[in-house]
Amino acid sequence: MRERVMMAVEELGYQPDMLARGLRMGRTFSVGFALSNISNPVLAQFVTGAERRLREHGYSLLLTNSEGSPELDADQILLLGRRRVDGLILSLAEEHHERTVDVLRHMRIPIVLLDRDVPEGVIANCVTFNHRAGMGMAVDHLLKLGHRSFALLIGGPDRPARERRLAVEDTLERASVGATVVVYDGDFSVERGCQATLNVLSARPRPTAIIAGGNMLMHGALQAFRDAGVEVGRDVSFVGCDDVAVAELHRPQISVVKRDLTVAGEKAAELLLATLTSPSVGILGGMKLELPTEFVARASCSTPAGRAAIDET
Amino acid sequence: MRERVMMAVEELGYQPDMLARGLRMGRTFSVGFALSNISNPVLAQFVTGAERRLREHGYSLLLTNSEGSPELDADQILLLGRRRVDGLILSLAEEHHERTVDVLRHMRIPIVLLDRDVPEGVIANCVTFNHRAGMGMAVDHLLKLGHRSFALLIGGPDRPARERRLAVEDTLERASVGATVVVYDGDFSVERGCQATLNVLSARPRPTAIIAGGNMLMHGALQAFRDAGVEVGRDVSFVGCDDVAVAELHRPQISVVKRDLTVAGEKAAELLLATLTSPSVGILGGMKLELPTEFVARASCSTPAGRAAIDET
Repeated sequence: MRERVMMAVEELGYQPDMLARGLRMGRTFSVGFALSNISNPVLAQFVTGAERRLREHGYSLLLTNSEGSPELDADQILLLGRRRVDGLILSLAEEHHERTVDVLRHMRIPIVLLDRDVPEGVIANCVTFNHRAGMGMAVDHLLKLGHRSFALLIGGPDRPARERRLAVEDTLERASVGATVVVYDGDFSVERGCQATLNVLSARPRPTAIIAGGNMLMHGALQAFRDAGVEVGRDVSFVGCDDVAVAELHRPQISVVKRDLTVAGEKAAELLLATLTSPSVGILGGMKLELPTEFVARASCSTPAGRAAIDET
Repeated sequence: MRERVMMAVEELGYQPDMLARGLRMGRTFSVGFALSNISNPVLAQFVTGAERRLREHGYSLLLTNSEGSPELDADQILLLGRRRVDGLILSLAEEHHERTVDVLRHMRIPIVLLDRDVPEGVIANCVTFNHRAGMGMAVDHLLKLGHRSFALLIGGPDRPARERRLAVEDTLERASVGATVVVYDGDFSVERGCQATLNVLSARPRPTAIIAGGNMLMHGALQAFRDAGVEVGRDVSFVGCDDVAVAELHRPQISVVKRDLTVAGEKAAELLLATLTSPSVGILGGMKLELPTEFVARASCSTPAGRAAIDET
């Protein structure tokens, strides 16, 4: 009998109604994925890793894009909640945005945050990067080349910006060589990166080393160098973040603090799956997985005098 | 009474259960979005446009990523069907893959294809690009500069590759100046673009103009030029596809055939919404919206002798 049923199933191409099945089990087997900006190439890598792992476990992704707006973050999270997702993976536009935090405090499903500190009163796990390690190495490299005057482009109040800034300031202070840094804070858009870099380039005295604390800021900085006719690695030394295509293909190649966002996506999915599949033993919040960053020295860094010093590294 | 209910709703922060509401209406207000490869930057733009328009109309995106695998395409579409999505937007890894086509033939929901010809027996609308216009202009530009020996890197059997190839061959034939093209066909990955370009560069006689028929192939070609120490715009002329960051930031800047993927995403969503919101007048298939492409001449193209000729355009 069982065999005949299975044959009929095969023959008729019967497909189970997953939605109905899920609802009977009190689950939708879907995970809400709120992205701050899908056009950010590192977030595309993050989605790739998370989607792969969730798919392997029978979960689908409900994706929303906040286009960089914290207000939209809050709306999108509410919407995902109303759609009865089993859990949330969030790359927030702004971790301390009041309405977003308020919405998150009322969520009763597992949440994993990407590279954000968990706001007070929110129950969530998170996957973060050790930005200080890679950024500290970058500053050490520039100090060793002889740089004493730095500019740092940074975006917003969130964890990555905070950690990168602290790494730069701490490393310079510990070196005790009288090095200074001027911080250009703002958002982390391409446009902001371009404008801030043009400001740095017109400052007198001009910093000899510029660090862009984000891949979109790096993209903007490279536009500014091009538009201003500044030769990176000769006229100024430059370090960016994330080993995206523009860093690798630039001539000269750009030194970067790099990290693996695909692995971060996989790990975020695994943290979520652990709480979804064994709710009795699952920990809803408080877990924090830190992933490493590293510094890759390339020809965009040289001595302040401009001699290419990549061979020394 | 109504007012008091609304006040209570406001006060309690009542949120309707959209899933339950949708099921009562026989709808899930979700759209399945099967992407061949989310790491392709132009597909991220496409998602941005589609998500924005669908969100405005109360629909959510169920996103899947096939990582370039046609087998996975078919699985993902089946999965989205079992999740009872109201419609599908598809960027297929391979439009004529037998199993994918078979799965699509059995779908009974509205489908919009991105830049693919609709396979026989499949009911779908599509948003396409007029690749011939932009690519024809690119070839005309290179012919006017004096090039007679071309190499074309192309990926796979799908519509964009076919149309780009036909544009190159037709334009050369109509010019009747004895120009020839060698076609390097394969997949459209970065790796393939790099390897094919290295092959072109070692061919004797070496083509004086290289065209990459896709943004990932362009990315690979730029790696090959760098690794081989070839100066684009002097040693060889080069045209790529899509105005992505690597084209804009390259020195010299890369001439490209460009198109607006964000608008394509918006239009794909609108085509789908038209059939979803007015099913009685909606047309399930047969509509085809063609969007323009254009050619942007930049310093990566010069005369075969190598003189920069960007000023002549």
